[in-house]
Amino acid sequence: MSSLSSLYKPSLSLLTDLYQLTMSYGYWKNGMQNHEAVFNLFFRRTPFSGGYAITAGLEQAAELISKAHFTQEDLDYLSTLTGNDGAPLFEEEFLSYLLKSKNTIDLDAIPEGSLAFPHEPILRLRGPIIPCQLLETPLLTLINFQTLIATKASRVCRAAEDDLVLEFGLRRAQGFDGGLSASRASYIGGCHASSNVQAGKLYDIPVKGTHAHAWVMMFPSEMESFEAYAKAMPNNCIFLVDTYDTIEGVHNAVRMGRKLREQGHQMIGVRLDSGDMAELSKEARKILDDGGFSDAKIVASDSLDERKIQTLKARGAKIQVWGVGTNLVTAKDQPALGGVYKLAAVRAPGKDWEYKVKLSNTPIKVSNPGILQIHRFVNEQGKLEGDLLFSTEHGLSSSPAHSLVQVGATHSFTGTSTPLLQKILREGEPVWTPPSIHEIRARAQKELAMLSDDLLDFTVNNPYPVALDTMVYRLKQSLIENAR
Amino acid sequence: MSSLSSLYKPSLSLLTDLYQLTMSYGYWKNGMQNHEAVFNLFFRRTPFSGGYAITAGLEQAAELISKAHFTQEDLDYLSTLTGNDGAPLFEEEFLSYLLKSKNTIDLDAIPEGSLAFPHEPILRLRGPIIPCQLLETPLLTLINFQTLIATKASRVCRAAEDDLVLEFGLRRAQGFDGGLSASRASYIGGCHASSNVQAGKLYDIPVKGTHAHAWVMMFPSEMESFEAYAKAMPNNCIFLVDTYDTIEGVHNAVRMGRKLREQGHQMIGVRLDSGDMAELSKEARKILDDGGFSDAKIVASDSLDERKIQTLKARGAKIQVWGVGTNLVTAKDQPALGGVYKLAAVRAPGKDWEYKVKLSNTPIKVSNPGILQIHRFVNEQGKLEGDLLFSTEHGLSSSPAHSLVQVGATHSFTGTSTPLLQKILREGEPVWTPPSIHEIRARAQKELAMLSDDLLDFTVNNPYPVALDTMVYRLKQSLIENAR
Repeated sequence: MSSLSSLYKPSLSLLTDLYQLTMSYGYWKNGMQNHEAVFNLFFRRTPFSGGYAITAGLEQAAELISKAHFTQEDLDYLSTLTGNDGAPLFEEEFLSYLLKSKNTIDLDAIPEGSLAFPHEPILRLRGPIIPCQLLETPLLTLINFQTLIATKASRVCRAAEDDLVLEFGLRRAQGFDGGLSASRASYIGGCHASSNVQAGKLYDIPVKGTHAHAWVMMFPSEMESFEAYAKAMPNNCIFLVDTYDTIEGVHNAVRMGRKLREQGHQMIGVRLDSGDMAELSKEARKILDDGGFSDAKIVASDSLDERKIQTLKARGAKIQVWGVGTNLVTAKDQPALGGVYKLAAVRAPGKDWEYKVKLSNTPIKVSNPGILQIHRFVNEQGKLEGDLLFSTEHGLSSSPAHSLVQVGATHSFTGTSTPLLQKILREGEPVWTPPSIHEIRARAQKELAMLSDDLLDFTVNNPYPVALDTMVYRLKQSLIENAR
Repeated sequence: MSSLSSLYKPSLSLLTDLYQLTMSYGYWKNGMQNHEAVFNLFFRRTPFSGGYAITAGLEQAAELISKAHFTQEDLDYLSTLTGNDGAPLFEEEFLSYLLKSKNTIDLDAIPEGSLAFPHEPILRLRGPIIPCQLLETPLLTLINFQTLIATKASRVCRAAEDDLVLEFGLRRAQGFDGGLSASRASYIGGCHASSNVQAGKLYDIPVKGTHAHAWVMMFPSEMESFEAYAKAMPNNCIFLVDTYDTIEGVHNAVRMGRKLREQGHQMIGVRLDSGDMAELSKEARKILDDGGFSDAKIVASDSLDERKIQTLKARGAKIQVWGVGTNLVTAKDQPALGGVYKLAAVRAPGKDWEYKVKLSNTPIKVSNPGILQIHRFVNEQGKLEGDLLFSTEHGLSSSPAHSLVQVGATHSFTGTSTPLLQKILREGEPVWTPPSIHEIRARAQKELAMLSDDLLDFTVNNPYPVALDTMVYRLKQSLIENAR
């Protein structure tokens, strides 16, 4: 089940920047509403100084494109907007046009849960200029955030090695949807479950949780609180042991675990939420083992991220389950992916395509023209070799491709290749079957296993090879020269 | 108009952590569902190393409390959850109880747009333990994020001095609601408008925007693009001038401004989006002034935040309107406010209140017991002197209060005081009239003007005095001793 139509009431067509509407009005007013455009959504730098991103958000993006529409209420609002002379910004005729318009867009996209690298179109839209323009903002919101969090989650899970990672972030998330879509993206990136019950229901993500400090404080003693919890829910006992004294708490958990065992139940484990987790987890492990609970798990949660987990592992922490919240769902060290959405081609009715580049004084920021596809090359060892961007209109050239990540260098690929962009929508109608979230998550796991170890490091110096086919490179150079 | 019911479809009752539901089940299973509890929502540290926070999110929080309810569909989902033995987590009878339960909660709160400081209850809930527990997570989400962003916006607007600040962040926001609620909170914190059209409609925020690079790229030349834009929307012309060459762009804007003037229209200004803004704005100002457009505004947008604006101002940048996006709506330097929600008192039916503290090895992290109110003291100069937390059950004592921000110190207030917490809900029903967003924003402006300059600095060393009345202090000490 997808989120948008089950979560949101409104048409969502106003969920965009005003300038998308003023530009759309400008296209209409200048008789350009039947121009066809191609836009690419991509990022220029991998997040967190790492070597890759994991794509997420496509299912919601496709739903938005096919379902977003204006309602009369939306237009009533737009008709109230005025310019600096107090006159309406939009003519009524334009608003009627919006009411009738459909997003007859062709969408091609890198599947969710795939590795993506700088300059690669994660989404490629082709369709009438107005809906393509209006959708820029919400598509960026959807893809930027979920891709950021899926990538962050994959780093946290890598630090946790084979341990379980639970996402606990809703209370510190940036709004309800910041929490919900972070839960979805975290699961795609490798987390095993979420505490967010709505995310569990909407997205079919496993949900986990037992009790908080407030529970313990409700009872005269910690032991009584554990007893009361076990009475209610004997099959879901992870006791939070740090309300008063962590070590005494673990002893109480062992006592309670014995009682549960007598009743035919199994304590799942204990949770540590403060203090020196490395030392406390070692002591807790010993107490649990000595008490006959070598299967009991130790859960840790306290401002964790990939670096803290790595440090705790290096210090020999005996933790099997990591609860990660704020730093994951807000991507604290980089809370936004700088994805952009750039015009790559346009054509008037009956005319040829005009290819477009967005110029910049920084060569790496100049966008790539044309209707692009990506080939991903895999070597004989099954590892990723690099990606090649080429024009679907111009085909592949035989000369070495031009590196996009090390401007000026060229690159030749030798492995076997497959195209990355898949058909998602044609004229706004779905032509795909969205994979389940579990399939998306499995894809991410599989793709990460194909990446070389140095690109999986938390800080990467040698970027993944992304290259531009010579045909596109030459087109780009000539467009740059013409513009200057 | 508020956001939740107009934006979201679902009951929102599942938008919480699973452990809130398992604890609620525990309360019910142990016959404690009629226990009355008091919870405080507060933060322990001001965000961004600054001296204050501006509260936001109350309107949505009150709406959530009074309207959230379980639907049969929610319960059908909950009935699928199982423990480690595969048996259901929740009895059907408990789920039926949830379906019938109402959030008969008394809510007192600091009004939106107020200054708030560490340890002060922004929300105080009093009501049956189960709904109070279930609401912890979503209330934290709402208040943490909007308070964070309102505070950030106030810092950005302070840096901009008397200039206009526009919030442009939706495309890099953390989910749709991350964008929408950031637009609301940014306006409360002092921004003058947003680019987010949905936020404009939902929250009555002014919306602004003209055109992007894509518009310019659609035409054979920049000048033709300006002409086409002015043809469509002569009363909303801010020309983006950096698509090809910023200075040449400003000259084109002047040419277009003259044509507009001939037609009886006024160019609003130009927008700079790259390069050295300080130098470019000075050159642009000169060209505009020399061209007869001394009223034309220069808008700047390019990864701005309060520090960058301050630096540009110090360098003499001639910018009158600041477009701030990513760094504002994600609060990039601190993307989460660490607000918490702590049990302060509980009573069984027919019994006395039992007061509660959450212990910690860090004294500043020990929570405050009782049913608290806050008095805010204002001195003869109309400046804020400090805040006093006291127990509504124990009244005020005459001895000096114990500072909460500098443990061990005491504080005496001499000015006049007013209570901060206002009645919002009684038994779940509104007993207030929510102020308009414009009134909330005006309150924030007024309160900021009452804060001393050193507390308005971007980095604050001497925190605002927040003190605990001696009666509460003694209660707290005795609870700590009893627990240990």
